[in-house]
Amino acid sequence: MIEHQFRVALHDTDAAGVLFFAHLFRHAHDAYEAMMARIGWPVDGLIRAGQLALPLVHVEADYRRPLRHGDQVEVDIELKALAERRFSLAYRFVSADQEVATALSVHVAIDPDTGQRQALPKPLISALSA
Amino acid sequence: MIEHQFRVALHDTDAAGVLFFAHLFRHAHDAYEAMMARIGWPVDGLIRAGQLALPLVHVEADYRRPLRHGDQVEVDIELKALAERRFSLAYRFVSADQEVATALSVHVAIDPDTGQRQALPKPLISALSA
Amino acid sequence: MIEHQFRVALHDTDAAGVLFFAHLFRHAHDAYEAMMARIGWPVDGLIRAGQLALPLVHVEADYRRPLRHGDQVEVDIELKALAERRFSLAYRFVSADQEVATALSVHVAIDPDTGQRQALPKPLISALSA
Amino acid sequence: MIEHQFRVALHDTDAAGVLFFAHLFRHAHDAYEAMMARIGWPVDGLIRAGQLALPLVHVEADYRRPLRHGDQVEVDIELKALAERRFSLAYRFVSADQEVATALSVHVAIDPDTGQRQALPKPLISALSA
Repeated sequence: MIEHQFRVALHDTDAAGVLFFAHLFRHAHDAYEAMMARIGWPVDGLIRAGQLALPLVHVEADYRRPLRHGDQVEVDIELKALAERRFSLAYRFVSADQEVATALSVHVAIDPDTGQRQALPKPLISALSA
Repeated sequence: MIEHQFRVALHDTDAAGVLFFAHLFRHAHDAYEAMMARIGWPVDGLIRAGQLALPLVHVEADYRRPLRHGDQVEVDIELKALAERRFSLAYRFVSADQEVATALSVHVAIDPDTGQRQALPKPLISALSA
Repeated sequence: MIEHQFRVALHDTDAAGVLFFAHLFRHAHDAYEAMMARIGWPVDGLIRAGQLALPLVHVEADYRRPLRHGDQVEVDIELKALAERRFSLAYRFVSADQEVATALSVHVAIDPDTGQRQALPKPLISALSA
Repeated sequence: MIEHQFRVALHDTDAAGVLFFAHLFRHAHDAYEAMMARIGWPVDGLIRAGQLALPLVHVEADYRRPLRHGDQVEVDIELKALAERRFSLAYRFVSADQEVATALSVHVAIDPDTGQRQALPKPLISALSA
């Protein structure tokens, strides 16, 4: 599902004239926040509630075509894997009907107070699987 | 006119729990790019054409209320001043019906090759004034 | 006093080939954090202690010359004004012996719990004035 | 070799109180730029010369421990792989004698004008291998 759309802004680009690679992750995270809000688990609410944190333990990205200032990009997310204490999400970045980049994020569930791993809440597992 | 809307993202905030002040300017520039595209002078087209650059010579911002993760914000822009070789824009950031911040940007017209000031093209003056 | 030095990184620049204006404030804040640490009031310690916050209520910058990828820049800070509940700092950005930009920040003292203005602690006033 | 050191700045952190993951890549790239300058191939010079670009085609990072505001971090880089048209670099982020994160970047050599892959220049291969 398309979770996020953006137009490559001037501040996304660098002196080489293309999107600076690290900014792809900012947009991936915007898509992740949009998805979590859509399924009823907004990240800002999670952080405020303080019961569950979902930090990233691994991310990666593959860049297939350069993105330039003004390009329109759609980001969709697919659940890639789901276990008791972690899940991973696959991101596709599409511009002008071409896949320009992909990314992956792996999140673990922890208790924000102790930093200890914990099980993902069952309702979150259901929401992610839906 | 409302040129840009955003939801305060996790990456907009800092460890003090509020929007990091410099990111307000990223959003102001997103609104500026949206306005320039709307009036027919997209910034990416200008940079590609290489005939006219509109660099910032002055910016400022006033922060009236903290913005927090998840807040919905609208940005509108008003032409504040217009002269032969420069113009300035006033930005209002509104969240939950309250003005949370304002900003100002002053742009000058230069020739990108020489860096020399030049007059703003008459059609751009018309478009900005409309 | 020179509080911070940096080399303009690729991620500081944009497709127009120069430092994206908002990143100047990131470097100004790095200089501010360095200054506060030097005078014994590190910002991270303040935020952790939770007794005093010094949010920005106003910032501005003037850009005199473009900064390009690889340029070496020094940032110095001078106390500009100091009152019971606020202070302002003036920043100079110098590259190749030329002043390329200046900036100003105005901080107020608040109680992080209530958001109410409070007086600057006397030891901080002394440290800022020294 | 330690290529870059930084103190986690306020703007590196987010409302969850830790370094926002994408900023790790900004610091990795600062280390990369420092390394390339040290071996005689500064990235800003490459971009200006316009003969060779070394875009990223893949990056990844593993986050082992949270980084907090004020933490001191050292970044070292090791050449991981080198082929005719590509190389990859491994990054280690160390804070308080603990490895807090690792990252990997894969760069390919292209002709900036055509976007076509090209062989890495032999002197660059030598410099990277040294």
